[in-house]
Amino acid sequence: MAKELKELTPRSVDYSQWYQDLVIKADLAENSAVRGCMVIKPYGYAIWERMQRQLDDMFKETGHYNAYFPLFIPKSFLSREAEHVEGFAKECAVVTHHRLKQNPEGPGLIVDPEAKLEEELIVRPTSETIIWNTYKNWIQSYRDLPILCNQWANVVRWEMRTRLFLRTAEFLWQEGHTAHATREEAEKEARLMLEVYAQFAEEFMSIPVVKGVKSASERFAGAIDTYTIEALMQDGKALQSGTSHFLGQNFAKAFDVTFINKENKPEYVWATSWGVSTRLIGALIMTHSDDNGLVLPPTLAPYQVVIVPIYKTQEQLDAINEKVAVLTATFKKMGIRVKYDNADNRKPGWKFAEYELKGVPVRLALGARDLENNSIEIARRDTLTKETRSLDGLEKYVQELLSTIQQNIYTKALNNRIQNTRKVDTYEAFKVEIEKGGFLMCHWDGTPETEEKIKNETKATIRCIPLEAEEEAGTCMVTGKPSNRRVIFARAY
Amino acid sequence: MAKELKELTPRSVDYSQWYQDLVIKADLAENSAVRGCMVIKPYGYAIWERMQRQLDDMFKETGHYNAYFPLFIPKSFLSREAEHVEGFAKECAVVTHHRLKQNPEGPGLIVDPEAKLEEELIVRPTSETIIWNTYKNWIQSYRDLPILCNQWANVVRWEMRTRLFLRTAEFLWQEGHTAHATREEAEKEARLMLEVYAQFAEEFMSIPVVKGVKSASERFAGAIDTYTIEALMQDGKALQSGTSHFLGQNFAKAFDVTFINKENKPEYVWATSWGVSTRLIGALIMTHSDDNGLVLPPTLAPYQVVIVPIYKTQEQLDAINEKVAVLTATFKKMGIRVKYDNADNRKPGWKFAEYELKGVPVRLALGARDLENNSIEIARRDTLTKETRSLDGLEKYVQELLSTIQQNIYTKALNNRIQNTRKVDTYEAFKVEIEKGGFLMCHWDGTPETEEKIKNETKATIRCIPLEAEEEAGTCMVTGKPSNRRVIFARAY
Repeated sequence: MAKELKELTPRSVDYSQWYQDLVIKADLAENSAVRGCMVIKPYGYAIWERMQRQLDDMFKETGHYNAYFPLFIPKSFLSREAEHVEGFAKECAVVTHHRLKQNPEGPGLIVDPEAKLEEELIVRPTSETIIWNTYKNWIQSYRDLPILCNQWANVVRWEMRTRLFLRTAEFLWQEGHTAHATREEAEKEARLMLEVYAQFAEEFMSIPVVKGVKSASERFAGAIDTYTIEALMQDGKALQSGTSHFLGQNFAKAFDVTFINKENKPEYVWATSWGVSTRLIGALIMTHSDDNGLVLPPTLAPYQVVIVPIYKTQEQLDAINEKVAVLTATFKKMGIRVKYDNADNRKPGWKFAEYELKGVPVRLALGARDLENNSIEIARRDTLTKETRSLDGLEKYVQELLSTIQQNIYTKALNNRIQNTRKVDTYEAFKVEIEKGGFLMCHWDGTPETEEKIKNETKATIRCIPLEAEEEAGTCMVTGKPSNRRVIFARAY
Repeated sequence: MAKELKELTPRSVDYSQWYQDLVIKADLAENSAVRGCMVIKPYGYAIWERMQRQLDDMFKETGHYNAYFPLFIPKSFLSREAEHVEGFAKECAVVTHHRLKQNPEGPGLIVDPEAKLEEELIVRPTSETIIWNTYKNWIQSYRDLPILCNQWANVVRWEMRTRLFLRTAEFLWQEGHTAHATREEAEKEARLMLEVYAQFAEEFMSIPVVKGVKSASERFAGAIDTYTIEALMQDGKALQSGTSHFLGQNFAKAFDVTFINKENKPEYVWATSWGVSTRLIGALIMTHSDDNGLVLPPTLAPYQVVIVPIYKTQEQLDAINEKVAVLTATFKKMGIRVKYDNADNRKPGWKFAEYELKGVPVRLALGARDLENNSIEIARRDTLTKETRSLDGLEKYVQELLSTIQQNIYTKALNNRIQNTRKVDTYEAFKVEIEKGGFLMCHWDGTPETEEKIKNETKATIRCIPLEAEEEAGTCMVTGKPSNRRVIFARAY
C-alpha cells in the first residue's frame, strides 16, 4: 500500500502529470490556499537553501554584496521606463488600501473605504524601478561606482496558469542590480554573471546549459541585451534557467541617475540586472529525475547518503547501530551529509522506496549477515545499480562515488541534449522536427516578423543565439534571406 | 569637512536624533520612496546576514528546518481566530486587484476595475493563519508530529509612525511555527526557543536580556502565553527583542487541525510560534554604540579588524603592503574577518573616523616607522584606547582582543542594566522614577485594570514577569492588593 501511494505516473504516459506527482510525493512543494502561490515544503526548501548558499558564495567571490529593497513599488514608478512598463505593468498584485475593519452589517472583515492609498502600490514583479530610484541618492561621482548589489527576495507576477516551481504567482529569487561608470564595464558584468550562472548550473546542478543572447522580442523589458542559459528537459522542451541583462542607460535615464565622470562631466550610469529563481528546482527535477522519483546531484542533496539497517532481533540492531555510529561519524568528518534511518515503524522495503523517491544519491543497507562478512550493500540512485563490497575503506569509496554520480548525471543530461540537438534547414522539416522536441539549430533572417510567424505556426521560440556558435553562412529557413549563424529554436516552459 | 559630515548628534542632546543620524551615516539603512518601508543598505544587511546565519544554525541544532509559505493571506483567514483578528486585522496592506492598464484618458497606469479579486488578500503581518491552514493537510496522526518549521520572510504591518529598524511597515524576520501532540511538548518548545533567543542575544549580540512572560494584555494575539526577552537601551527605555508564544490549541481549533493520538482518539494539535526581526539591529545599535558611531560585537561585525597604512612615499607603502599581505593571510586563516584599506584617495584620519563610525572592533595602523621598530598601533573601538606593541605574536593577541571586546561590551551593557534596575514600592515614587528610565521592579496586583491605569498615567508597561525572579510577598503599588513577585515596568520602544 505504502508503495502504491508513492507511485508516480510514468513519464511516457503523461510527462506533465509525472512532474506534478513527483513534486507532491517527494514533499518538495504544494499548492496553497492562495491562487498561484505555492508552499515550499521542508525537503524542497532544503534544496533551495543549498542552491542559495552556493550562489551567494559565488556572488561574493565575484565582489558582490547583498542589500534589501522594499516589497512595494509606487504605481507611477512602473511607467517611468517605456519598455519596462509594457513588460511588467500588467498582471500584478495591487495594494489599494491599508486597513481592514469589522463589517458593520454582518460577520467578518471588510476593507475600510476610508483607508484608500493616495497612490496604489504594486507588489514587486522585479525591482529595477525601486532600486534605480534609490541609486539616484547613492551615486554622485565615479568614485561611488560600481555598485554591486544583490537581493534575495520574493516577487509576484499574477500568472494565470501556474505550475509548481515552473510558474507561480509568488516565487523566490535573487536579483542582482549593478551600476557602472562605463558601458564596457556593465557589459562585462552582465557576461560575468552569465558565466557564474552557467558554472553553477553545470557544476552544482549537473545541468548542461547553452549560453546565448536573446533575440529582441525575447529580451527583458528595458534591456539592451539579455543573456541566458538554456537547458533542455527530458521531454524535449527548453527551460530558460537564468538571465543576465545589460540595461544600458535606460533605467538611469528613467530615474535621472547621473554621475560626474573622471573628466568632471555628468553622465548617465550604466546598469545590469541578473536573476535566478526557485524555477531552477523545476529544471533540476526535469533534467535528472525518473519514474522512480527524484534524482539529485550530490552537491544539492539534503542527504547524500542514507543508511538502512536490516535486522530481525534487537541484538542484531544493537550491533548494526554500533557499527553505523562509527561510519556516520567518519562521513560527517569528511563533510558528507548522512542520515541513519533505524526507525522501527517502517520496513526496509518502504524505506528503500522512500529514499529512492526523495533522490538520495547513495543508499547503504547493512544487515546482520553483512556485519559477519564485513560487507555492506551500496545502491546508486542515478543508475539504480547495487553492489556488495567490503566495509574496509567504505568511506573513501562513497566519497568518490558521490563525485562519480555528480559527473555521471551531468554526462547523461549532456548526452540527452546532444542527441536532441539537430540542424534543420527547411521550414517543412522544421515543422516535423519540432514535434519531436529538442533544440533545433536553424538559420533565421534576424527579423521579429519571421520569429513571430514561426512562433504562431509552431509554438517554437528562439531560445537564444548561442555565444559559442560558429559563423556559418546560410539562408533563413522561412524567408530564404541570408543568415550568418544558426540560432536555437525550441518549445519552452 | 569629511569629518563634519560624519558627525552625529550627541546622545545627550537628542537620543532619538543620534539614533537616526547613526543609522544613516553608518550606511545601515535609509527610508525609501514607499512610506514606512526601509532600504537595508549593504553594511546593515551584512550584519543581518551574520545574525541570520547564527540563528539559523541554532534553530537547526535544536531540530528545526526551514520552509516557505505564501506572502498573501485570504482576508477571511484573519477572522478565524477570535483574538488574532483583533491584533492583526487592522493596519495592513490589502491587495484588491490583479491588473494595471494604460489610462485611456491620459498618461500613466490605472488599476483595471475588471481585475478585482473575489476575496481580498492581505500581505502577511504574521503567518499563523496561512500556516495552520496548511498544516491541516500535513497532520493526520501523532506520527506526523512534531512539525518544527521555521520561515525567513518579509512581513508588513501598516505602522503609522516608523523608525528605521525599530518600527517599519515592512520588516524582515524569522517565524517559527511548530505543531505538537501534547501540551507539555508545546510548552517546552516555547521555552526552548526563548532560551535560544536569550543565548543568541547574550553570546552573539552581547546584549544582556531578562527572560520573562508577558502579562495578559501584552500577549501575542491568539497566544496562551507569550515569553519574551527584554533588553534595556542606553536611554533607559526597554526593547522587546524576541518573543516565543505557546498558542495552546487556539489555531488548531480555528483551522480544524486534529490528529489521531496514541490512544486512537482525535485531538486538536498544540502549537507554538516564535520570532525575531531586523528590529534586533535597532537593539544592537542602542545597546552598544556611542557618540562616535557604531560599536559592534566582533561576532557580528562585517569586518572585525581593519588595517590602515601610514606612509608618505610609494616605497614606504610597498613595504607596508608586503608586511600586511602576510598579516591578512594569517588573520584569514584564523577565521578573522580583516580589511586592508590602502585606498589612496583618503587620508588616514578620514579612514580612522570612518571605521570608528562603522564600529570595526579593532583598528591597526602600520606606518613606515612602525616597520623599522617591528611595532604596530592597535586601537579598540569599544574603549577608544590605543596602544603600540610588537608585531611579534600580533595575530594571537588580536584574536584574544576580539574575545575581550565581545565580553567587555556585554559587561558594560549588563552594568548599565544593573545600575538602572530599581525596586520601587510606591506609586508616587514610581511616577518620579519612571522619568529617569530603567527597569522598575514593582509589585502589581495582576489585574489588567491596574496595568492599564499605570500605562495611561505614566506610559510605562509591564515588560515581563521575570522567569528567574524570586517569590517575594508584597502589595501592589497602586491598589495595595497582595502580590507574590515583582514584575518589570518600563517605557518601551
